[in-house]
Amino acid sequence: MDAAEFRRRGKEMVDYVADYLEDIEKRPVYPDLEPGYLRSLIPTEAPLEPESYEDVIKDVERVIMPGVTHWHSPYFFAYFPAASSYPAMLADMLCGAIGCIGFSWAASPACTELETVMLDWLGKMLQLPECFIAGTHGRGGGVIQGTASEATLMSLLAARCKAVRRIQAANSKKSESEILSKLVAYTSEQAHSSVERAALIGAVMMRKVPTDKHYAVRKETLQKMVEEDKAAGLIPFYFCATLGTTPSCAFDHLTELGPLCNEENMWMHIDAAYAGSAFICPEFRPLLNGVEFADSFNFNPHKWLLVNFDCSAMWVKERADIIGAFKMEPLYLKHENQESGLVTDYRHWQIPLGRRFRSLKMWFVFRMYGLKGLQAHIRKQVGLAKEFESLVRADKRFEICAEVVLGLVCFRLKGPNELNQELLKRITKTREIHLVPCQLSGRFVLRFAICARTTESRHIQQAWQHITQLTFELLQEAGH
Amino acid sequence: MDAAEFRRRGKEMVDYVADYLEDIEKRPVYPDLEPGYLRSLIPTEAPLEPESYEDVIKDVERVIMPGVTHWHSPYFFAYFPAASSYPAMLADMLCGAIGCIGFSWAASPACTELETVMLDWLGKMLQLPECFIAGTHGRGGGVIQGTASEATLMSLLAARCKAVRRIQAANSKKSESEILSKLVAYTSEQAHSSVERAALIGAVMMRKVPTDKHYAVRKETLQKMVEEDKAAGLIPFYFCATLGTTPSCAFDHLTELGPLCNEENMWMHIDAAYAGSAFICPEFRPLLNGVEFADSFNFNPHKWLLVNFDCSAMWVKERADIIGAFKMEPLYLKHENQESGLVTDYRHWQIPLGRRFRSLKMWFVFRMYGLKGLQAHIRKQVGLAKEFESLVRADKRFEICAEVVLGLVCFRLKGPNELNQELLKRITKTREIHLVPCQLSGRFVLRFAICARTTESRHIQQAWQHITQLTFELLQEAGH
Repeated sequence: MDAAEFRRRGKEMVDYVADYLEDIEKRPVYPDLEPGYLRSLIPTEAPLEPESYEDVIKDVERVIMPGVTHWHSPYFFAYFPAASSYPAMLADMLCGAIGCIGFSWAASPACTELETVMLDWLGKMLQLPECFIAGTHGRGGGVIQGTASEATLMSLLAARCKAVRRIQAANSKKSESEILSKLVAYTSEQAHSSVERAALIGAVMMRKVPTDKHYAVRKETLQKMVEEDKAAGLIPFYFCATLGTTPSCAFDHLTELGPLCNEENMWMHIDAAYAGSAFICPEFRPLLNGVEFADSFNFNPHKWLLVNFDCSAMWVKERADIIGAFKMEPLYLKHENQESGLVTDYRHWQIPLGRRFRSLKMWFVFRMYGLKGLQAHIRKQVGLAKEFESLVRADKRFEICAEVVLGLVCFRLKGPNELNQELLKRITKTREIHLVPCQLSGRFVLRFAICARTTESRHIQQAWQHITQLTFELLQEAGH
Repeated sequence: MDAAEFRRRGKEMVDYVADYLEDIEKRPVYPDLEPGYLRSLIPTEAPLEPESYEDVIKDVERVIMPGVTHWHSPYFFAYFPAASSYPAMLADMLCGAIGCIGFSWAASPACTELETVMLDWLGKMLQLPECFIAGTHGRGGGVIQGTASEATLMSLLAARCKAVRRIQAANSKKSESEILSKLVAYTSEQAHSSVERAALIGAVMMRKVPTDKHYAVRKETLQKMVEEDKAAGLIPFYFCATLGTTPSCAFDHLTELGPLCNEENMWMHIDAAYAGSAFICPEFRPLLNGVEFADSFNFNPHKWLLVNFDCSAMWVKERADIIGAFKMEPLYLKHENQESGLVTDYRHWQIPLGRRFRSLKMWFVFRMYGLKGLQAHIRKQVGLAKEFESLVRADKRFEICAEVVLGLVCFRLKGPNELNQELLKRITKTREIHLVPCQLSGRFVLRFAICARTTESRHIQQAWQHITQLTFELLQEAGH
């Protein structure tokens, strides 16, 4: 395919994309097929000779679309939102064309520098404390990670390295493996599975902290565990707080927990993967109070801030902490500006070496929406969640299972878990809307998350209408 | 921006992309600016109100392009290639529009299933042993990782977990931290820095194996180290072989090393990040002989197989090994087909949770080029490297520093390192071509890698003309 054909096919693809997104709600939100469906639809080997573009593109509807879960359908209420906006898609086209691999400043200065400045812009939108802003002389700053899982892992590894060095500085006879075997990390029992996984990767113990009745970690609980562990000869070194847990969007109490972590020399990382976007609205910003005690903070603009996946924003207070954990300098990656002190080589900040020019997406989205446009998006979606909450509260057969703070509503039918499992099964099977469950205090709960950018009140009303219809049938069959 | 405006702007962007790539050689390949250039060109904060698209797009040439290292310029010979093709860019547009996060089968069945089949297609192109092909009943199979760094890390973590379990099964009294402190991994002293980094992350020892005069690891050297380590009470558990090292594209001797790793119960991972693409050509496939002894194998189609970044292909012989290292199942990620045994949940295969629909790029590229088209691309670029090698060999002032097997030529001016450092400095400064150095046997060496898809003989000739011109000036000044 030459440039001329790309011009033609690219324009057709732009129309296909616009058509897909404009008409998405006509498609069943969840696919109706059995595992293994795709293999029989295409050859078992790649073709020897080139095929035509027509042949490829017509297979998109035949092979791909029947197997797509449509995350951008206004009837998709599962997991958490995946961001999508037209400006981000345009920026991604440009990113693909430039196609630089921005592992160091020299590998493409614009890729590195725009990223640093965009993380400053975003940090200011969130009113992050000055220490997280890179500016021209800051010791902190931001980076785009692929996912919150990677941000958590990087923070845990940086904390591990810092703890080992601190302990060895005080007692040079202790071996690294001896120290590692005593390090202990903490996170909420409600934290995302990726936090526990980070500890497995980093080969350190991770203890789950019980939560209060709002599913939040409180200071006393963590303090008690830390004291017990210290008494047992262990070394508490890391706490991952969650703002907006995955099951119920609960918020750990940072203003209590932060000072404790600081006193105990424990790295505090904040995982606000979903909720973080809301902090650009002054009315939600108090949820982030206490961030000043954190060593690192992360949230996903690719969830709720209209920047297409992947774009997970992470800030650290001391860039030396995160860089220091891994800095390696083979000659083929050295460049002459490296020692100037002005240069950021982002490969030291992350697990992968290569990286795309993802800050272009942030730049396009922030400018074309403006802060006000982004705030309007958050507020609209929170409003829709409140609307759904009201519908649930008005129906005595149902209960709300956790406070609705942002765009997630946790609810269930009063009664046994089996009833709710059956309800969800029927919802999934009819494929008009899509939800996933969670577990809260041993109860099987349905999660209703406002996801698509194009979800409106009418979709919420229709979703509730659908749920109550299925509930009616279910309860009738069950003889209620 | 609504769909109607996206249709218009998207088509303009398609033309901008085509224009950029058609005219790229008119731009200086390497930017001429100081660190920090970008910050002063844009505001210090995001705008409050939305800006127009015109304002954003005109800043691409003003702010971004002056700071771009043009990886797809035919005068770019640095690092290794970053793949770029029009079919891959079209597929990426579709990927962005579908915008699914494919962490589990249910999160978008097509995303998972196309990936499994594409990795089978690609595995067959490489003539990988049957045990690496998923098929419908295979125990192995492939996955797309973001980068080779992540593939290496995943293999090391899987090997670590397997070793700990094996040792604990034989001696249940040994604690995990006791075992970890004795595990030792090996890789070539010529291996990529990410291999050493994987060991740092995984908190295990990594020993660098000295290479022969061709910069390859031989069996005797590794065997001796393994025996010494075992005698010292350590537990060798992992060897990362390299096919096509970053400094000089050297190849470790798999057919010798593989049986040793198997005998010693050491996981053998093969990192063929750059060279792997060449194995689709029968004449280069012998370089992969011995892969049958490996537990995992990885290369980057995003380097040399025309699939835009990121797309790093990894295969394992036993999927249970890699999944088993981390499997975690919170309720919000469960789905009903999970237990069928037919389903792949790729989140267990990788560090991040989220993942894009990257197999679309492979599907478009494999079909629109066909195996023959891809082979032609590899052969053309190897031919260009040979052409450059001949030019260097014909000039007595220069020497070739490593055998030219694929698309990389390592060369230098005969004489002191300082002379070569100065030559590279002048090359970088004039910005007509772009190269990076490496170190081989203590010597400062220039790496000339054939990178852009559009590089032709005339660019090679012009590059050499430029290098010899600068050499002439340099030697004259130096009084030679």
